[in-house]
Amino acid sequence: MSHVLVLLNRPSKDAPAHAPGAPAFRFADAAEPQLSVLDLGATRGDGIFETISVGYGKPQAFTHHLDRFASSARALALPVPDLDVWREAVLAVIAELEPVDESFVKLVMTRGVEGDDKPTGWAYASPSPDYTRARTEGVRVVLLDRGYRHDVESTSPWLLAGAKTLSYAVNRAVAREAARREADDVVFVSSDGVLLEGPTSTLVFRSGNVLLSPGTGLGILDGTTQANVFRYAEAQGLETAFELAGPDALLSADAAWLVSSVRLAAPIRAVDGVELAIDRDFTAALNVYLKNLDD
Amino acid sequence: MSHVLVLLNRPSKDAPAHAPGAPAFRFADAAEPQLSVLDLGATRGDGIFETISVGYGKPQAFTHHLDRFASSARALALPVPDLDVWREAVLAVIAELEPVDESFVKLVMTRGVEGDDKPTGWAYASPSPDYTRARTEGVRVVLLDRGYRHDVESTSPWLLAGAKTLSYAVNRAVAREAARREADDVVFVSSDGVLLEGPTSTLVFRSGNVLLSPGTGLGILDGTTQANVFRYAEAQGLETAFELAGPDALLSADAAWLVSSVRLAAPIRAVDGVELAIDRDFTAALNVYLKNLDD
Repeated sequence: MSHVLVLLNRPSKDAPAHAPGAPAFRFADAAEPQLSVLDLGATRGDGIFETISVGYGKPQAFTHHLDRFASSARALALPVPDLDVWREAVLAVIAELEPVDESFVKLVMTRGVEGDDKPTGWAYASPSPDYTRARTEGVRVVLLDRGYRHDVESTSPWLLAGAKTLSYAVNRAVAREAARREADDVVFVSSDGVLLEGPTSTLVFRSGNVLLSPGTGLGILDGTTQANVFRYAEAQGLETAFELAGPDALLSADAAWLVSSVRLAAPIRAVDGVELAIDRDFTAALNVYLKNLDD
Repeated sequence: MSHVLVLLNRPSKDAPAHAPGAPAFRFADAAEPQLSVLDLGATRGDGIFETISVGYGKPQAFTHHLDRFASSARALALPVPDLDVWREAVLAVIAELEPVDESFVKLVMTRGVEGDDKPTGWAYASPSPDYTRARTEGVRVVLLDRGYRHDVESTSPWLLAGAKTLSYAVNRAVAREAARREADDVVFVSSDGVLLEGPTSTLVFRSGNVLLSPGTGLGILDGTTQANVFRYAEAQGLETAFELAGPDALLSADAAWLVSSVRLAAPIRAVDGVELAIDRDFTAALNVYLKNLDD
């Protein structure tokens, strides 16, 4: 099939099943309505998600994604996702998907219909878009204010910074703002001037022999792809480090990337209109490595 | 019926109808699935809403709500909602709802299924919960950091502050934080110390003969109920004003309220554990006025 959906019967052991006694999940038609208009995912963006890349049929950074899913659930005080069932569901949709080199599975768990106390869960698989151009020619980014200080994750955990929630209207709005400025993507900067992340990616940049990334604790996601990029870089003899840095560090970098599960490593070719060098050979080899990962 | 749903065929004239030639909207069963798991409302919180109170069968602040709906659509660069159709849809669900003193209609417009360029729209009506206790005994609030400076609406419009979006996970998380602190509700404070609003209400407080509210332009909603509260107060001989103020102004107020469409005026009886006087007579008369509004 060209895209595959399963609905989970019991996304969490902390909540009752939707259909007691029924199997753990069932296949459903993604082209048909499957959600209630009273689902808090749809009315309040009250839920979490993960997007897992699948290279040659194998889910990548699978455990890291599932762990992050559980961590997002904690941040939102959602029922604990039953990771065994979610893992099974992911493998089931992959098995039904037509074989392609690159696909993805999206996992979503919402708080469910208001008052029901039963989370809604689904896994949806589809072939990935073709990101060749972004991976080879690179992306032009603009720096945009994220509004928050870099320390809100510790001072104000109710802002859910660092959790992968369904409340992504801002992440979509900044993509439109980038397009207005004739750019392809965004790097968020905290209100106190610290480089954060992209709206759907992690920032990585090279300064001399060191590959750097902002790191967690800044109200940003724990990058699953960034972790693998660091692994690759270390194998190539580079040092890696997390660093609190401002925009100047990016503008003076030797090379930079936005890295994410499905698009993989997209080199940054310009920041606010200022050109940045692309390391084509390193980027190409890195993307081959990322595409061939086996968890 | 005890709750009523209509799905809009063409929520905006800027986009094609879902079923060309079909009526403007159709009744549907709210207990059955009506939304795609690919709807950007469900996957990204990418859409807008309004909740309109209905007192004795009459939608209140109807035009103000519809105008705000259109304003939220602009902030998100959504297709322009066809307000004539939305107005018709609201009246249709009200007409089908069993007559009760207080009910509400929720309007939702999402960006639709990714790639379809057809917004999804629905109107859902239901009797209101009983808010007698909050209206008479009052609510205990805590002050919580909203993360943003008070001027982000002008400096960083892509943060969508001041738009009523479906990305409300934070508005739900602060309610849980309030409960943890044994409070009932929240007043947001900007990162630079300015009183903002509640997560689902507008702040109003009285200092001597003046009724004050933070006002728009601070990344907060243009309060439909607040506007009516000001009208009532002026008719009672009070002055009204918008004022940029810090938490001290609330703590030293003669009385304060969180006002919203469905709960109406809930007096604030404590702020971070510090008790505040409740003006019972004024509050009771104000709520009678709000319940009986005819637009």
